[in-house]
Parts: sequence; C-alpha cells; structure tokens
Amino acid sequence: MTGKIVLAYSGGLDTSVAIPWLQDKGYDVIAVCLNVGQPGADMTFIQQKALKVGAIQSYAIDAQDEFANEYVAPVIKANALYEGDYPLVSALSRPLIIAHLVKIAHEQGAVAIAHGSTGKGNDQVRFEAAIHALDPELKIEDPIRDFHWSREEEIDYAKDHNVPVPIGKKSPYSIDANLWGRANEAGILENPWNQAPDDAWGMTVSPEAAPDAPTYIDLTFEQGLPVAINGQTQPLADLIKALNKLAGDNGIGRIDKIENRMVGIKSREVYEAPAAAVIMTAHHELENLTLERDVAHYKPLIEQQLTNMIYEAKWITPLFDSLMAFIDDTQKVVNGVVKMKLYKGSAVPVARQSETNSLYDENLATYTSADTFDQEAAAGFIKLWTLPATVYEEVNHVHSQKPEDK
Amino acid sequence: MTGKIVLAYSGGLDTSVAIPWLQDKGYDVIAVCLNVGQPGADMTFIQQKALKVGAIQSYAIDAQDEFANEYVAPVIKANALYEGDYPLVSALSRPLIIAHLVKIAHEQGAVAIAHGSTGKGNDQVRFEAAIHALDPELKIEDPIRDFHWSREEEIDYAKDHNVPVPIGKKSPYSIDANLWGRANEAGILENPWNQAPDDAWGMTVSPEAAPDAPTYIDLTFEQGLPVAINGQTQPLADLIKALNKLAGDNGIGRIDKIENRMVGIKSREVYEAPAAAVIMTAHHELENLTLERDVAHYKPLIEQQLTNMIYEAKWITPLFDSLMAFIDDTQKVVNGVVKMKLYKGSAVPVARQSETNSLYDENLATYTSADTFDQEAAAGFIKLWTLPATVYEEVNHVHSQKPEDK
Amino acid sequence: MTGKIVLAYSGGLDTSVAIPWLQDKGYDVIAVCLNVGQPGADMTFIQQKALKVGAIQSYAIDAQDEFANEYVAPVIKANALYEGDYPLVSALSRPLIIAHLVKIAHEQGAVAIAHGSTGKGNDQVRFEAAIHALDPELKIEDPIRDFHWSREEEIDYAKDHNVPVPIGKKSPYSIDANLWGRANEAGILENPWNQAPDDAWGMTVSPEAAPDAPTYIDLTFEQGLPVAINGQTQPLADLIKALNKLAGDNGIGRIDKIENRMVGIKSREVYEAPAAAVIMTAHHELENLTLERDVAHYKPLIEQQLTNMIYEAKWITPLFDSLMAFIDDTQKVVNGVVKMKLYKGSAVPVARQSETNSLYDENLATYTSADTFDQEAAAGFIKLWTLPATVYEEVNHVHSQKPEDK
Amino acid sequence: MTGKIVLAYSGGLDTSVAIPWLQDKGYDVIAVCLNVGQPGADMTFIQQKALKVGAIQSYAIDAQDEFANEYVAPVIKANALYEGDYPLVSALSRPLIIAHLVKIAHEQGAVAIAHGSTGKGNDQVRFEAAIHALDPELKIEDPIRDFHWSREEEIDYAKDHNVPVPIGKKSPYSIDANLWGRANEAGILENPWNQAPDDAWGMTVSPEAAPDAPTYIDLTFEQGLPVAINGQTQPLADLIKALNKLAGDNGIGRIDKIENRMVGIKSREVYEAPAAAVIMTAHHELENLTLERDVAHYKPLIEQQLTNMIYEAKWITPLFDSLMAFIDDTQKVVNGVVKMKLYKGSAVPVARQSETNSLYDENLATYTSADTFDQEAAAGFIKLWTLPATVYEEVNHVHSQKPEDK
Repeated sequence: MTGKIVLAYSGGLDTSVAIPWLQDKGYDVIAVCLNVGQPGADMTFIQQKALKVGAIQSYAIDAQDEFANEYVAPVIKANALYEGDYPLVSALSRPLIIAHLVKIAHEQGAVAIAHGSTGKGNDQVRFEAAIHALDPELKIEDPIRDFHWSREEEIDYAKDHNVPVPIGKKSPYSIDANLWGRANEAGILENPWNQAPDDAWGMTVSPEAAPDAPTYIDLTFEQGLPVAINGQTQPLADLIKALNKLAGDNGIGRIDKIENRMVGIKSREVYEAPAAAVIMTAHHELENLTLERDVAHYKPLIEQQLTNMIYEAKWITPLFDSLMAFIDDTQKVVNGVVKMKLYKGSAVPVARQSETNSLYDENLATYTSADTFDQEAAAGFIKLWTLPATVYEEVNHVHSQKPEDK
Repeated sequence: MTGKIVLAYSGGLDTSVAIPWLQDKGYDVIAVCLNVGQPGADMTFIQQKALKVGAIQSYAIDAQDEFANEYVAPVIKANALYEGDYPLVSALSRPLIIAHLVKIAHEQGAVAIAHGSTGKGNDQVRFEAAIHALDPELKIEDPIRDFHWSREEEIDYAKDHNVPVPIGKKSPYSIDANLWGRANEAGILENPWNQAPDDAWGMTVSPEAAPDAPTYIDLTFEQGLPVAINGQTQPLADLIKALNKLAGDNGIGRIDKIENRMVGIKSREVYEAPAAAVIMTAHHELENLTLERDVAHYKPLIEQQLTNMIYEAKWITPLFDSLMAFIDDTQKVVNGVVKMKLYKGSAVPVARQSETNSLYDENLATYTSADTFDQEAAAGFIKLWTLPATVYEEVNHVHSQKPEDK
Repeated sequence: MTGKIVLAYSGGLDTSVAIPWLQDKGYDVIAVCLNVGQPGADMTFIQQKALKVGAIQSYAIDAQDEFANEYVAPVIKANALYEGDYPLVSALSRPLIIAHLVKIAHEQGAVAIAHGSTGKGNDQVRFEAAIHALDPELKIEDPIRDFHWSREEEIDYAKDHNVPVPIGKKSPYSIDANLWGRANEAGILENPWNQAPDDAWGMTVSPEAAPDAPTYIDLTFEQGLPVAINGQTQPLADLIKALNKLAGDNGIGRIDKIENRMVGIKSREVYEAPAAAVIMTAHHELENLTLERDVAHYKPLIEQQLTNMIYEAKWITPLFDSLMAFIDDTQKVVNGVVKMKLYKGSAVPVARQSETNSLYDENLATYTSADTFDQEAAAGFIKLWTLPATVYEEVNHVHSQKPEDK
Repeated sequence: MTGKIVLAYSGGLDTSVAIPWLQDKGYDVIAVCLNVGQPGADMTFIQQKALKVGAIQSYAIDAQDEFANEYVAPVIKANALYEGDYPLVSALSRPLIIAHLVKIAHEQGAVAIAHGSTGKGNDQVRFEAAIHALDPELKIEDPIRDFHWSREEEIDYAKDHNVPVPIGKKSPYSIDANLWGRANEAGILENPWNQAPDDAWGMTVSPEAAPDAPTYIDLTFEQGLPVAINGQTQPLADLIKALNKLAGDNGIGRIDKIENRMVGIKSREVYEAPAAAVIMTAHHELENLTLERDVAHYKPLIEQQLTNMIYEAKWITPLFDSLMAFIDDTQKVVNGVVKMKLYKGSAVPVARQSETNSLYDENLATYTSADTFDQEAAAGFIKLWTLPATVYEEVNHVHSQKPEDK
C-alpha cells in the first residue's frame, strides 16, 4: 500500500488512463479537476468520470475568479508577453492547479501528486517546480512521461481498465485552453513554412470573416487592471470572457510564431488570446499617459524578466515576489479609460484619458504654454546632455576629424 | 562680417525666413537640402528657392540610399521601436543631415551651422548633439528658437524680405517625413481623447478603405536586412518605398500614441510607417527562427537601450557604436524568408523558413525525434532548475506551510 | 518686499555672505542648519551666527537619526556604490535638507528657498530636484552660482556687511561631510597623477599608521540593516559613528577615484567612508548566504539603477520608490551575523551565519548529503542547459568543425 | 572494442585510476595534460605517468600563453567578477582544455572524451558544455561521477591496477589552480562560520606576515590589457605570474565567500587570485579615466551577464561572442598607466594617467576653466532633467503636499 495520490485530472483520455495506472502502482487516487475557464468544460461530468474509472475521491473546483485575479492580473500589470507576443496562457494555470492539489494532499494525508505532462514540454517543469516549492517531500508521479506507450497501446490499456475511449478519429491538434487563451500544437504545424489551417483556430474568426464595420469599446482601468467595458463594471474573469467574445468575433488575438521552449528546443506555436490582445494594448497605452518617463523606460526590463520567469516555471520564487512588488508599486497611478477600435484582426487605441493621473496636461505640457520656459532651458540642457560624448570625440576623434585634418 | 554659415534648409517658410534673418546677423548663408525620401520633395525647386531668398550657395543632395543603408538599417537589425511601437522616423535623419552640413562647413570654411528646430522638441537636441560631436567649435544658430515671432510677424518679415509666403490657410498639421515614415503633430491632436481625423494621415488608407482580400508577400532577409520582396532583389531604399506603397494601401502602419519626449514632457503623436510595420514584424519572426535562445532573450535589453539612445540624440556616441557591435554580431545568422499577410491594417507572419540558419529543425527539435532523450533529461533538469527556490521555501516558508503546520 | 526665503545654512563663509546678499535682493532670510553628523558641527554657535549676520530666524535641527534611518538605510540595503566604489555620501543629505526647508517654508509662508551650491557640481541638481518635486512653486535662489566674485571680492563684501571672515590661510580643500562619510575636492587633486597628500584625509589614519594587530568584529543584521556590533544593539546612527571610529582607526574606507559627475564632466574625488566599507562588505556577504540565487543575480541590476538615480538627483521620483519596493522585499531574509576582520586598510568577511535564513545548510547543500541525488540529476540538467547552444553550433559551426571537415 | 577515448589527465589519483577503469570499459586511452600555469606541475613526469598506468598515448601541452591571451584576457576587459568578487579561476580553463581534447580526438579518430569532475560541481557542466558545442557526436565519459567508490575502494582499485597511490595522509583540501588563481574547497570550510585555517592558502602570505612597507607599481594597459609592470613589457602570462608573486607576497588576493553554484546549491569557497586583484582594480580605475560616461554606466550590465555566462558554462555560445564584440569595442580607448599601492592585503589605485585617451583634461573639465559655461547651462539642464518627476508630483502628490493642504 503506497498511500494516497492527488491527480491533476482533466477528464481526457491521458489522465483517465492514469487512474488505473496509478492504482496498479498501489496508490489510492484522488482526482482534482479545476475550472480555469477552459471552454466547454462540464465539471460535473468530469468529476463523475474520475470516480467511474477508479478514483476514490473526486473534486471539481471552480477557480475562474481566483485564476483571473491572482494569475492573470500580474500578467496584465506587467505587460507580460513572452518573446514579445505570447501572453502566457498555459504557464499561468500550472501553479494555481498545484496550489489546490497540495492543499488537498495535506488535507487528505496524501503522499504524492500526479500530473499528466509529456517529458518534452514546458508544463512538466511548471507543475513540478510548484510542487517542489510548496512541499518538496511530496513524491511526484508523471504517468504520461512514464507510459512509453503508442496510441494503440494506450487505447488497449484503457479498454482493459474500463476507461471510456473517445469514438472516431483523434483530433490532429493538441489543445490547452483557459479563460486567458488557447494554445495549439500539431503535426501539421511542425513545419514552420506551413500556414495554419482554418480548423486550427477555436476562439477567433478569421479577420476576413469578421464584421465590415469596426467595434469601438471604452476599457476602464483601476490600478492597472481592467474593471469595466463601456462603463459597465464586472469582475475580471467575466470581463475577460466578454472581451474574448467581442474581440474573437473581430478576428483579434491570433498569434503564429516560433518560440524558444524552456527545455531548450524551438517549437512552432499557434495561440489565440483575444481579450489579452485588447486589454494589454490598452493597458500599455494608458501607461504611456500615466507613468513617469523613467518608470516607463525602466519597467520593460522588469517586465521581460518577470515574463521569462513565468514562462520558465519560476512563479513561486522570491525573485518573482520582489519583482511584483516593483510592478504593483507602479500600477497605483494606472487609472483611466482607453478607447479601443476592434476591426478585422487588429485592436488599436484611438483615444485615452485619465481624470486623476494623466501626466499629459494641456496646461502643463503642450507646446504653447511651456513656450518661454522651454526655449531657455533647452540650450543649457543640450550642452550638459551632450558633454560626455563631445569630450570623447574631442579626445578620440572616432567620428570627427582631428583638428589638423580639418 | 561674421563669416559663412551652413543652413539645414527644407524649402518651407521657417527655414526660408531664416536666410535673411541670418544675413541680418552678418552671415553668408549656404543652404543645404537633403532628400531623405520625404514625399513630394522637388529638390531642384528647393535648391533654386534658397538662392532666390538670399543664400550665397545652395546644395541639393540625394541621400536616400545613405539614409536607408546607414541610418534605417540599424533600426531594423535592432528592432528599434521607441516605447514599444514607434520606429524612430525623425530621429534618424538628424545625424545624417548634420554629417553633410559639417562636411560642407569644413569644405567651405564656414564658422557656424544653423537648423530650424523649435525650442520645445527633440530635434534641436538631435541636431546640436551631432554638431557637438562632429565639431564642437562650430557655432550653432537656431533662428526658429530665437524668432519669438507670432505667425503674423513672421509673415510680415517674410514679405519685407521677399520670401515667398504660402497662399491660403495654413495647414493645421506639422509634418516631418522621410522614406521610413511620417510624423504628425497638431493642435487638434493635443487632446489625447480626440480621435485623429482622416486628413491627419498621409501615407496610409484607413483599414476600412483597404482591399477586401489580403495581400501575401515573401520578404527575404540577409544578415538581418530585407533584400527582396517576392524574390525580387532591390536596394534597401527602393524596397522600403515599394513596401510603403503595398502596406500603406492595406491600411498598415498607423500609430497613435502618447510619447515621452526627451525634453521631459509627454506629447501625443500620430505616426505612419507602413514599410517599417511589415519589415520589423517579419524581422522579429525570422529572429525567432534563427537566434539561439540566450541571444533572443538578451538582445531586447540591448535593443531598448539603443532605441532610447537614438531617440535621445545619442547616435554619435561610443556607447551607440559598442552596442551596434553587439547587434551586428547577432545578425550574421538572420537569413531567410518570412511570408507576411497584409490585410486591413495588420501585418502578420504566417510562415517562415531559413535554409541555412534555421534552429528549428524537425529532425533535431520536434517532439517525435527527441522523444527518448528528452524524457530522461527533463527529470534531472527540473531538479536542479528548481533547487534554489525549493531550498528557499524549505528555509523561509513564504508560500509553503511549515512542517509543524502541515 | 520680496518675502521670506529659507536658506540652507552651514555656518561657513559662503552661506553667511548669502544672508546679506539675499537681504539686498529684498528677502527676509530664515536660516536652517541641519546636523547630519558632519564632524565638529557646533549647532548652537551656527544658529546664533545666522542671526548675527542678519537672518530674521534661525533653526538648528538634529537630523542624524532621520538621516541614518531614511537616507543611509536604503544605500545599505541596495549595496549602492556609485561606479562600483563610492557609497554616496553627499547625495544623501540633499533631499533630507530640502524636505526640512520646504516644510519650514510652508509653515513660515516663505516664497523661496536658497542653497549654496556652485554651478559646476552635482549638488545644485540634487537641491533643486528636491525643491521641484516637493513644491515647484517655490522660487529658487543660488547665491553662490550667482556671485561671480573672486575670493577677494567675497571677503570685501563680507567685511562690508559684518560677516565674520576666517582668519589665516584658506584651506586648500573643499570638504563635505556627514555621518556616512567625507568628500574632498581640491586643486592639488585635480591632476589625477598626483597622489593625495596626507592632510587630504580626515576620518581615517593611513593603513601604515594603523595597529599591527587586526580587529575582529561581529556585525549583526536584521532585515538588511546592521543593528549590533559584537552583540551590542544600538540605533543605526550611533552604530555608524562607532564603526567610523573603529574602521577609521584601522585605515579603512579611503577611496581615491575618477568619477563621472552628472553634469557631464569627470572629476577626481577623494572620499572616506570607514563605516560604509565595513557595513556594505558585510551586508553583501550576508546576502550571499541568505538570498536565493536568482535574487542574488538580479538584484545588482536594480542596485545599479538605484545608485545612479541617487547620484543623479532622482531621490524623490516614482521610479526610486518602485525600485525600493523591490529592494525592501528582498531584505526580509537578510538576517544574521558576519565576522569582519579589520586590518591596515582592508575589511574582509571571515565567517558568517544566519540562524533563521541561511540557505547554506550542511544538511541540504553540502557535497556529502546531496550526493546520490545530484549525480543523477546533473546529467539531464547538462543536456537541456546546453541544448540551445549545441543546436546553434550544429547548424552554424562558428566554433566547431563542419562534419565534412572533421 | 569501443575505440579511442581522449582523457583530460591531471596526473592525480582520480584521473590515473580512470585510465584502467576506461580500459576495462574497452577504450584505448589517450591522456592529455595541459599546463595552464598550475603551480608545481611537472609536465614530463605527468606525461610519463599516464603511459605507465596504461594510456596508449600521452600528450603534455604548454597552454599558458593561450590560456592568458584567449581566456584570461576577456575576464580582464570585462571586469568579470562572479557575484562581485570571484575572478573566475576554474571556469576559464575548462573550455580551453576541451578545445585541445576535441582537436586531438579528431586527429586520432577517437570516439569519446573523458573528464574527471564530480557530479556535484560546476566543472562537469563546463566540460560537457564545451564538448557538446564542439562536437555533440563525441561520447562523454565521467569516471569520477560513475565510480560510486569510497576513498578506500578507490585505493584498492588503484593498487590492483598498478596505479601509484600517494603516501601519507590525504590532504584535507581539494584544490584547483591555474595561473589566474587557486580555488580551495574542504570539509572544514563547509561550516561557513569556521574561519579558513592558515594552511588553506597557497599563493599568498597573510596580510599580517606581509612587509611593513608598501610596494608601488605602475601598471601599463593597452586596449584594456596589462602589458607592462613599471615600464617593463612582457607577455600577459608572464606578467600575471610576476604579479602573482608581487601581490601574493603582500597578502593580496584572498577571497572567502559563500557562492551560488550553478547546479543550484550554495558553497563556501576560499580563493586566491593575487594578480587578478591588482590587474582588475587598476583596469577599472583606468576605465574611470577613459570611458565615456554612458559606456561606463552601461558596461557593468554586460559585464554581469558575461560573468554569469562564463561561470555557467556558456563560453562557447553565440551570446558570449556577441557580448564580447561589445566589450572589445569599448576597450580601444583603455590605454594608460595606473599606479597601484600594494600593502598588507589591499591593492588600491593612487594615481592614473592616459596620454592618448584621458577624458579628464584639466583644460576641458576642471572647475576653473568650465566656469562661465557651466553655470549658465546648469540651470536649464536642471529644469528639463527634473521635469518628468516634477509633473508627476504635481499630479499625484506622493511626496508633496496637495495645494489645498499647504
């Protein structure tokens, strides 16, 4: 008797097969499925299915608000776009899932945690990093990494153990989704010169199929987070879902890119993140209006570090916390409204205002009123601003002529 | 008699009025106009006009290739987007113009350089920084900053000195353009909540007015620079102009943003840079395919520094040169083709390949072939990767429970 | 009648002469002198002197604890050494002085602030930056910058206005000091090939004159700040003063360097900071023991930014606050003791411990106990750690031979 | 028959035992020993010993100049001090050793490389990273990592295979040394509160035992590298060895610290690097004199990245090369002389000059001559320098009072 194990359960074939497989190893399996906004998740059905295939206990947890407020919010505040464009969909749910699993493991006296990642991707690292951080004494099982089965062998094993097998042809796509977006990897996409086929997309229409007239929305932010669409306040999770629909219908949020996976290889990824595309563009423009220049110019360095850390499984680390202390401090003034134009694949800011925190003030900053002052100050500023490089050229003449050659 | 002065001459009212004004101060004025691809520039007419209003000599110089190869090229290689989105249009032409003016000053024995910037913007700093670097002994005159005239007084002065005055109402817009893009500042845009009116744009149609079918192009790069459209090789300046047309016709390249000007104020800017939008997006995606991961993750820090330096008048500095040594070294492997889809305002990569330098190799990097190897290596990697944060939690229990509380 | 002005008063000739000079301009002068630990400051005498030479009111404020706790403490936590070695002596007192002056200006209804910096150094920027930040409507007077007097003219003016003139030869040195250290600039030091003469130093003996036996001290830190010497707890200001004596007597804390002044020129500086040399070396070593690796490797970037900002007059800025939020978050675990050896000019750590936060734990981290685990994990780690560069070489063969050439 | 293997051979017990052990696995062993300046290395004896214990071929290579010029030189130019104080002794020889081993492997048609690192340290990663980069098809053997022997078992195995066993008690220390320094790890040092005993040091006398009078030397640099001591030019390797003697005799170069090892644990290290302490301090001070301010302030970021990469086994990577392109470009102007005072444990600059590249020029930069110019320019400079933070306070009043509260 090995003891209880808590399994991150999705309801799919892999994690369903994992239940008898872990039982064979002597574990009592406690299945836990989290709703993080993945579309079409029937939580009751999934909860029951786990019990049917052998779990001794099965949890279904609605974690959508927690996911939005604790995991997506930092990404918005930090403009976290991995390698410039990917808003970190899957990387965000892993530490949340593990936090719940470890809590249940402690409550239930379990000795181990199981997850269903392959041995070739990022997610195994994210799952296990979170387990190590939260309780390094918990044993980790990764059945999928250990199966070493072909698809046919897996199906045979499933049939032998009364695990329901999906009927019909297997989808060519491997999808991970939550309310912040959707990631798609597939054989056909592995040639980076192949264009993504129409059925690779699930949250967006194509820009060509989007409406012929633009949609304008006013997005209101408080302390760096969106709180209202067109003045209508709603919880972050709901606002994201509403925007996914609005923006997805306008063909917005498709990303098709080559990416550096943390295990050292490049992969071709097809993502959709409609709400993210709108929110993060608007957030950046509101920061342009409200952040002081030095903050605006330094924050991107912190952002890139944070982004890489999220991608690279370092959510539960002291550096993440300290960097977020920086980010949170900058967001106190990020209050205001950005008017976004959504049209056939693009989301662009067309107007912005901040009643309380705009640093663009026509009385302070326009050409006209600052006139006299600026023109005198500028000359002195230029002299000192350019002095070090001027002296450098006077001594070294890298770009300038030496006096004797003039 | 004060001596000769070399004037950066545009043919417009301000720099034309500057000629008699500088003569009044005792200078002999040598006018120099550079063609850096600003649309509609009739160089012969401008050259003659300078002589008519009093210049003792007048140069018209076609610097388009030099501008593209020496000033735009670094921006492409460095993905230089100021504050994330502005590809540095005006900042690029200033050091080029001054390089020519200083050369002519030396040839002609001039004692001073004049430029026509206002005292409230970035360009005065860029002009004067370049003059200081190339010859700090040259005196600098900035008539516009010194005029202290109202529009009416300027026109009266012009009429008194036989300077042609434009007929009709003054355009509400203040434009600076070259082959890399177009910047527009205007009274109506100074309220950031006002949307940019249709006539604010000059290089692009609106996305709504763009064709209903997408345009696909293959953009070929060699060592980080675009060399061919759909396989047709052309000089960089010509390629940029061709792309400005193609992309502008598809509504691509509009930027509407709040920006931190280097003199310390925020301004609202409306830019167009159609070719830049296509080239820089494609360049970034080709780097995703060809740059090693550490290079890909470190280069953005250098890029941001370089970008700020270009914006902030630090083109002719030793740090710029050293940073470009880094950038140039990274670009040797950025060879390949990116297929771009241009459609109603957006330019997105849909396919990419590099025959010689792709680090994405289906034989090396795909899930399938790396299978066995990866699954064993990953477990060890995860252990060491997460070890420091794991030990930190074991000691400090910031996110984890203390053993006695479990 | 111009109104009241608050003057940063030191008791020296320059700021004493400033009092009648400001009166001549029509101001009623309120003198304020702060004790920030400058050695030998007789605050009562200084306070009286201001009244004698014409101030309508005179404040003497003991700000030593405030200076240590609010201005020196961030420097310790952030290991702030400008250009690698200067612990920011003068830059720290300026914002503190201005905070008091602005408060008094508001209480007294003053319209202006005066400081006595030259127009060639850093301090004018630091004083005025703080005034601008705290109340941009306060007018600023800088008499010293405006005097345009020779030494003789200044003395004549002093005599005419009953300002006491120091007897005897003027010291060749210009000193600024507080409890954190002492800065010396002087004509003889302006040739960087000249060695600093013995009388240039004021807080330290020469290493040669220091005792022949080392002094060992145990320095205890709590949350990144020193709280006790050899177990004896004392307030930070007192601890610094005690260490200045201990370390200064051992010849520790002399710095002789070329420095980049923020106004664009290089200067040669001779500093002493005995306590700083000991505290900051010990603090860094305690961080080596208690900071998680990623924090330890990232914090220096933040530190350098903060350090430059302090030097460059950006203490009262939002970026400073946000960076300090990062720093403060890292210091929660910096608790422990470092044994320092002080001997003839050098202060080095020889032992260190942290009962509560050491991440070096012989049970967790030594060779012996981690044996089995490490040896298996390392192989996998190495494979994935080196994979991107390995693939790069396989494709590009920059350092390796092509297969056909082997 | 497995084929030929090239072994990194030191002459010590571990790598001697490795020869029969590899033979048992079927390899023909080719031993290669490099002289990288490790003290007391009798290369002929080592070469013969390898043959005696069974190698089919044995190389002894004097790589001292190559080591100094190709591996130490970048460290000097980049001021590369890991975690602020360790000049990277062992990390430097690993890629050099592997470069020779791979070359010999190719010449000899070997199929594998063997090194003798433990599985718990950094060196295994550095050796194997270099092998992967230079020829990923070469098999790697690490006998020491695979032995799983106690000391007694190793000695028994040695005796059984005619491997000479050292007589007497085993040294408690594990040493790695080359001409750049010496690293010592030992059981007694594993408690970080234990002070290093006298016999832990090998290249330096204690400061107390050093001469009572200081030694002054003039160190001349060309393009960032030291070329002469007191005017006497010598090759870099010879200069380093001469300085090791000079500085070591003055008690200089001892480092005692807690360090973050790249495999995720903290270790306590005792290093000696006398020449490095003098050269790197002098180099930094010469940079203070000759580097333009922006270069001086940006270079440390690049330096820290390079330093971590060297420590973390990333010598043969494209990012290393690109960063070195930056570093090399900055060093063109680092020419001049620094006078260093060596005294009882400390090496400090006391004078410095650069005839050709000093940016400190009394005519350009001193208080006196720049007087008039500075005083006017400063006021304008201060206004624009402080404008963004001033506006921020006017809007947000974080540190300042709101108008209504004044």
